[in-house]
Amino acid sequence: MKQFFSRADVADGETLLQQARAYRKQPRLDFGLGTGKTLGLVFFNASLRTRLSTQIAARNLDLEVLVMNMNQDGWTIETREGAVMDGGAAEHLKEAAGVLGRYCDVLGLRSFAGLQDAEADRADALFHQFAAYAGKPMLNLESATRHPLQSLADWLTIRDRAPKDRKIKVLLRWAPHVRALPQAVPNSFAEWMLADEQVELHISQPAGFELHPEFSTGAQLHHSPEAELTDADFIYVKNWSATTPYGQIGSDPAWMLTEKQLQGSPAHIMHCLPVRRNVVLADELLDGPRALHLEQAENRIWAAQAALANLLQP
Amino acid sequence: MKQFFSRADVADGETLLQQARAYRKQPRLDFGLGTGKTLGLVFFNASLRTRLSTQIAARNLDLEVLVMNMNQDGWTIETREGAVMDGGAAEHLKEAAGVLGRYCDVLGLRSFAGLQDAEADRADALFHQFAAYAGKPMLNLESATRHPLQSLADWLTIRDRAPKDRKIKVLLRWAPHVRALPQAVPNSFAEWMLADEQVELHISQPAGFELHPEFSTGAQLHHSPEAELTDADFIYVKNWSATTPYGQIGSDPAWMLTEKQLQGSPAHIMHCLPVRRNVVLADELLDGPRALHLEQAENRIWAAQAALANLLQP
Amino acid sequence: MKQFFSRADVADGETLLQQARAYRKQPRLDFGLGTGKTLGLVFFNASLRTRLSTQIAARNLDLEVLVMNMNQDGWTIETREGAVMDGGAAEHLKEAAGVLGRYCDVLGLRSFAGLQDAEADRADALFHQFAAYAGKPMLNLESATRHPLQSLADWLTIRDRAPKDRKIKVLLRWAPHVRALPQAVPNSFAEWMLADEQVELHISQPAGFELHPEFSTGAQLHHSPEAELTDADFIYVKNWSATTPYGQIGSDPAWMLTEKQLQGSPAHIMHCLPVRRNVVLADELLDGPRALHLEQAENRIWAAQAALANLLQP
Repeated sequence: MKQFFSRADVADGETLLQQARAYRKQPRLDFGLGTGKTLGLVFFNASLRTRLSTQIAARNLDLEVLVMNMNQDGWTIETREGAVMDGGAAEHLKEAAGVLGRYCDVLGLRSFAGLQDAEADRADALFHQFAAYAGKPMLNLESATRHPLQSLADWLTIRDRAPKDRKIKVLLRWAPHVRALPQAVPNSFAEWMLADEQVELHISQPAGFELHPEFSTGAQLHHSPEAELTDADFIYVKNWSATTPYGQIGSDPAWMLTEKQLQGSPAHIMHCLPVRRNVVLADELLDGPRALHLEQAENRIWAAQAALANLLQP
Repeated sequence: MKQFFSRADVADGETLLQQARAYRKQPRLDFGLGTGKTLGLVFFNASLRTRLSTQIAARNLDLEVLVMNMNQDGWTIETREGAVMDGGAAEHLKEAAGVLGRYCDVLGLRSFAGLQDAEADRADALFHQFAAYAGKPMLNLESATRHPLQSLADWLTIRDRAPKDRKIKVLLRWAPHVRALPQAVPNSFAEWMLADEQVELHISQPAGFELHPEFSTGAQLHHSPEAELTDADFIYVKNWSATTPYGQIGSDPAWMLTEKQLQGSPAHIMHCLPVRRNVVLADELLDGPRALHLEQAENRIWAAQAALANLLQP
Repeated sequence: MKQFFSRADVADGETLLQQARAYRKQPRLDFGLGTGKTLGLVFFNASLRTRLSTQIAARNLDLEVLVMNMNQDGWTIETREGAVMDGGAAEHLKEAAGVLGRYCDVLGLRSFAGLQDAEADRADALFHQFAAYAGKPMLNLESATRHPLQSLADWLTIRDRAPKDRKIKVLLRWAPHVRALPQAVPNSFAEWMLADEQVELHISQPAGFELHPEFSTGAQLHHSPEAELTDADFIYVKNWSATTPYGQIGSDPAWMLTEKQLQGSPAHIMHCLPVRRNVVLADELLDGPRALHLEQAENRIWAAQAALANLLQP
């Protein structure tokens, strides 16, 4: 595998799922696959779970890990072709990525959406430019459009607990927030769910928050906070900022999910974390037996390990 | 051992001391005890010696180490139960600790006293909450009330050089400073000294700076800068802020320890570092043969290694 | 080797070059040389390439690596002898270096020139004081006056591609910049080039930017942007701030190197990175086949590994 950027990079999802499960059962199953090799993790945005789970995954393969927090450790990076670099940026992406490509065998990159220019964000230029200049297998640690390590962990969590004898009904449900968050997690979740024929995906969100059709085509869309709540097997709760007008904060409290809204439905509740309690999701749900958020977080390790193992065998 | 929070967690101090000495003699004596396991070090306050000595100790056991500087790497953490998280905090301690508990086999936490509310500091809530949510063996990297890794290193330093045929006379002596420092180090030092029947502990400090009786009961208290100086085997010099009124800075220069004040006594001088020269302790003492501060710092490695080895065998 | 501070610390340059090449061919050739030992990397100034290449080099020798960013992780350090530390600095260099000397087997230090006081910078006091207090083999990660890891990597890059049958003509050529940069890289480059009898070194810079004779004696100096451009085998492009008046920025755009200025000469172009494109060097040179900057960056790994291997055998 040359890159783990989107669902399209995965030839056989079921095999990837089995690999993740195998590592969960036996973390050092493929210890030695990374011996003498180096993984570089480049963060243009802060990370906690992603860095830690990927570090653990890498060490389970005996990969050395180098972490670079570009805003703290390094310097501001210029990305424009042909720029006269007489301003704040001390280094061009060509050199930063070029050097890291020579230092590392696999590279992971995190770079969030700017939420100012929808087309620019959708192009995910930083990831693809970095990949081109580095010339090494690339792991998406959350780009402007996608967060595939989260989605693979989510998919694993769902498939572990899914009914075997019928379609799995999954609801991706918008929730309010106080900040403008990217659409990478919901985009990616929809993309991975729609690739699984066993899943029936519903998405509900207020008007103006519909995901781009590139990600949502094939899902059933709803616009009410109550939609499909009592009937879903899994409810994936997540805030994202508006698509029209692009990047606007959405904070309607009617969309905060509570136990009462579920009316006794046995649905599992999922969230990718970090979660703002009593804004996005009520305490009783996160503290109750329905919640799978910690299981999802743990599965991030096995998702990262499966992805890395594939990137080490290009 | 489920936690290394206070002296009370140590069933047999002499055995722990022997373990620390054994690791000092042969650092990789128990290499392999941590193979395939991960230590997470969570810092809510900056650290230099503690992080480095614990990392070295962990690697001597083949433990992988993950470091999280919560203020730099992560996000602000909410700790209040039931909070509506619409402010600055992006994640609740329940999730942060819950995830780290799933990622790591042992967790270390540093969280200083706020020095605003004596009762809140004495409850050491962050440490205990984190432990409860994480559900894994916990190492105290300095909490609001205690710094047991420092105290074990200090005890080891004292016992290495103590007279064998009589009581060891130890003076914990307050010193001036320009900032308000927590009482964790002196609390913990007193606690460990008083648990050793061979030690006779004296504490001298200005009025208003007496440690809480939970820690000082059993010690002989003095209130003069000259008290017991010429008669002690070990003088542990340390500033701490006032207990009444709580958290007030104490800077009386009469308490800065100098060679002259010792009047030819052969006492060893100890300090936990960092030390402000010529404010807390005069240069001639730190640069002279009495000073054990670098030895104490080195013993931090072996203290941490002994503690970690016990936490790995719960 | 007790320190790798300047070219003078290297008894036999050719042997060092061969070691670097041997590691490049077989990175784990001496794996085990560092087993159970720790390298401490102390940064008073930010680093990207230096940290990463040295970490990779160290791991190839099975050395454990501890990184300390003194401004972020630790506290402000006092360096003056006899200081009354009642200001911002919480720790003295004596203690910081003394502790690290007890924690680590080899120490690397980065500390840039202040560019305010030429004599103070030339004394490189922080490096030498730190070495004295730590008492361990020391690696220069770029000091006020020198950057020997860069120079060794540069020398390796040059010798790999140099003509074998005649003198190698090398031009160190000043370039404009928007900030005041230290002279460490050009000083060090000149020092290493002049130690190689096969090299004929030319240096060209505007008036006021001549390097200190300690470094430039033996080189042929020029003062025109065109000097020796068409005749050199290697052109090392680099900005540095003025020596008279000390530390002044130089930004004359006539000195930005372009393809046109080379008039068809086949010279290789070198730069230590980071490089400001279209200020220091034109895009067409960095993107063209003459450019060796990424090769230099990669050779940083093998230079660091050769230096570390020597420091581990003192």
